[in-house]
Amino acid sequence: MKDLFFKYIHELQDTITSKLEMIDGTATFKEDIWKRPEGGGGRTRVIENGAVFEKGGVNISGVHGKLPASMQSYFKVGEVDFFACGLSLVLHPKNPMAPTVHANWRYFEMYNDQGDIIDQWFGGGQDLTPYYLFEDDAIHFHQTCKTACDKHNPEFYPTYKNRCDDYFYNSHRHEARGIGGLFFDYCKATELMTMEQWFAFVTEVGDSFLEAYVPIIEKRMHLPYTSQQRNWQEIRRGRYVEFNLVHDKGTLFGLKTNGRIESILMSLPPHVQWVYDHHPEPNSREEQLMRVLKTPKNWV
Amino acid sequence: MKDLFFKYIHELQDTITSKLEMIDGTATFKEDIWKRPEGGGGRTRVIENGAVFEKGGVNISGVHGKLPASMQSYFKVGEVDFFACGLSLVLHPKNPMAPTVHANWRYFEMYNDQGDIIDQWFGGGQDLTPYYLFEDDAIHFHQTCKTACDKHNPEFYPTYKNRCDDYFYNSHRHEARGIGGLFFDYCKATELMTMEQWFAFVTEVGDSFLEAYVPIIEKRMHLPYTSQQRNWQEIRRGRYVEFNLVHDKGTLFGLKTNGRIESILMSLPPHVQWVYDHHPEPNSREEQLMRVLKTPKNWV
Repeated sequence: MKDLFFKYIHELQDTITSKLEMIDGTATFKEDIWKRPEGGGGRTRVIENGAVFEKGGVNISGVHGKLPASMQSYFKVGEVDFFACGLSLVLHPKNPMAPTVHANWRYFEMYNDQGDIIDQWFGGGQDLTPYYLFEDDAIHFHQTCKTACDKHNPEFYPTYKNRCDDYFYNSHRHEARGIGGLFFDYCKATELMTMEQWFAFVTEVGDSFLEAYVPIIEKRMHLPYTSQQRNWQEIRRGRYVEFNLVHDKGTLFGLKTNGRIESILMSLPPHVQWVYDHHPEPNSREEQLMRVLKTPKNWV
Repeated sequence: MKDLFFKYIHELQDTITSKLEMIDGTATFKEDIWKRPEGGGGRTRVIENGAVFEKGGVNISGVHGKLPASMQSYFKVGEVDFFACGLSLVLHPKNPMAPTVHANWRYFEMYNDQGDIIDQWFGGGQDLTPYYLFEDDAIHFHQTCKTACDKHNPEFYPTYKNRCDDYFYNSHRHEARGIGGLFFDYCKATELMTMEQWFAFVTEVGDSFLEAYVPIIEKRMHLPYTSQQRNWQEIRRGRYVEFNLVHDKGTLFGLKTNGRIESILMSLPPHVQWVYDHHPEPNSREEQLMRVLKTPKNWV
C-alpha cells in the first residue's frame, strides 16, 4: 500500500504542476529535492510571481524512521517505527476574484519491532478560500467533492464536509477560513472498508482536484479588480496566516518537530496586510463573504 | 499596589502616546475603550498610516474576575479570583532603517475566598527588532536598559537580557526575533526584594522606554531607502508574525481565552511578505543582520 500510494502522489504531483503551469502561461515551478536526516525526504515545487499564481506550492514527501517523541504522545503509542507520505498543495492567485485553494492527501503506517504494520490510515481533503464569493464556484467545488465521495459511500460527503467546516475554523475570530470542501483523517480498515477501498476513495478525491479547481481559476483569473479589492484580499490572507500558524495541526507539528520549514511555510501567502479593527461596509460584497464565513452553508 | 500600578500605566500610556504623536507629526492615536464581559476592560490606542509609524498600538488593560480554567492549570491553582493589568506596546515604523519596538509591563494578583492576596507578581520588558543593524542603536538601547536595571540590582541586566534572548526566539527558524533587551516575569516578594521595590524597578524600566527608543527612531526615520530594502523589511516582518502567532505565550493565551482580538493582534505588522526560501546576498547588510540574529551578542 505504501509503495502504491507513494507512486500515486508522485504522478499526481506531475499532473497537477503541468496543468497549473499551462494555466499560468508565464511562471514555472521551481523544484527542490530535500533529504530528511532521520530518513526519507521530499520534492517541493513552488511557483512565484506568475501571471495567475502569485505564490503556490505542490509538495510531496515520504518520511520514515523512529516515531518522534512528540508524535508518540500524540498517537498514544510507545517507541515505534513509522512511515508517512503525502501531497500538500496551496495556491494563492494574484487576482482577488480567484480563490485560494488547499489540498492534502496522506498515508501513515506504524510498525512493531518485527517490522509488521501495527496501524495504518489515510487522511486528507481539499478546501476553497475565496476573497469574493461567487456562488457558482462554491457549488461547483462542493458538487465535484460530492460526486467523488458518492461513488464510495453516500455518507462520506456530508460527514467530511462538516468535518472540513469544523477544522478550518478561526475560533479566535468566530469565522471559517473559507467555504470548505472535504476533510477526513484516520481512515482505517473496518468491516465496511478495506485499506484498498480507502485507497480507491482517497485517489478518487485526489483525481478530482483539478476538475474541482481548474474551471474556477479559469473563470476568475482575468476578471478586472480595483486596488481596494486587492487590499481586501491581502487582509483576508492575514486570516489565512492566522489559521495556519495558530490552529493548523499539520503546520504546528512540522514547526515543532524540525520539519523542512520552507516546505511547510510555502502555504503562507506572498503579500499580506493586518489593519486594526477592519470591518467591511454594510451590504458590500466583502460583507456578503463574511456572512457565509460566519455561518457555513450547504452548497449542494 | 494594584491601584498604584494601574494609575502608573494610565499615566505612562498618556506620556508615551503624546511623545509618539509629536514624533510622527501627521497621524494621531485612535482610542477604543472596551469592556470585558467577565470584569474589567481596557483602553486601546492605535496609530496607522503615519508619516513615521506605519502601524502601532499602545494599550492598557485591567481585568478581573474568576481565573479562567486554562489559567488555573497554567498557574497550577484551583478556582480563585484574579486581577491583572498591564501596558503593551508595539510600533512598526514605515522606514526599514528604523526598528520595530515592543514593550510590556504588567502586574498580577490572585485571591482566596476571603479576598486576601494569595499571590502577586510583576512582569515585563522591552525589546528591539531592527531590519537593518546599526550597532550604535543596539548599544544605546541596551545601555538604557542596563542603566535602569543597575539602579536596583547589578545582576538584573545580565539575567533579564539573557531571558529576553531566550524568549524572543523563533526556534523553528533557529534565529532571534530581534536584538533583544529585557524580559522578566514572576517578580515576587523575596528576602531581597519587597513588592514595593519591584514596583520601583518595573516603573524605572517603564520610564526608560522613551529614552531607549526615541533617539533611535529620530535618527533613522528620515533615512533614504530603496524598494528592495522595503521588501526585506516586509519579509522580516513575516518572522515577527511567526513569533507572535506560533511562540508568544501572551498572544496565544489571549487568542484561546476570548481576549479582545483586535487589541491582541494590533501587534501584527501592517504589510508583510512571505517569499519561498529567501536568503540574503553574502556579505550584504541583510546578511549582517542575520548573523547577529543567529548568535545574540552582548551589546554593553
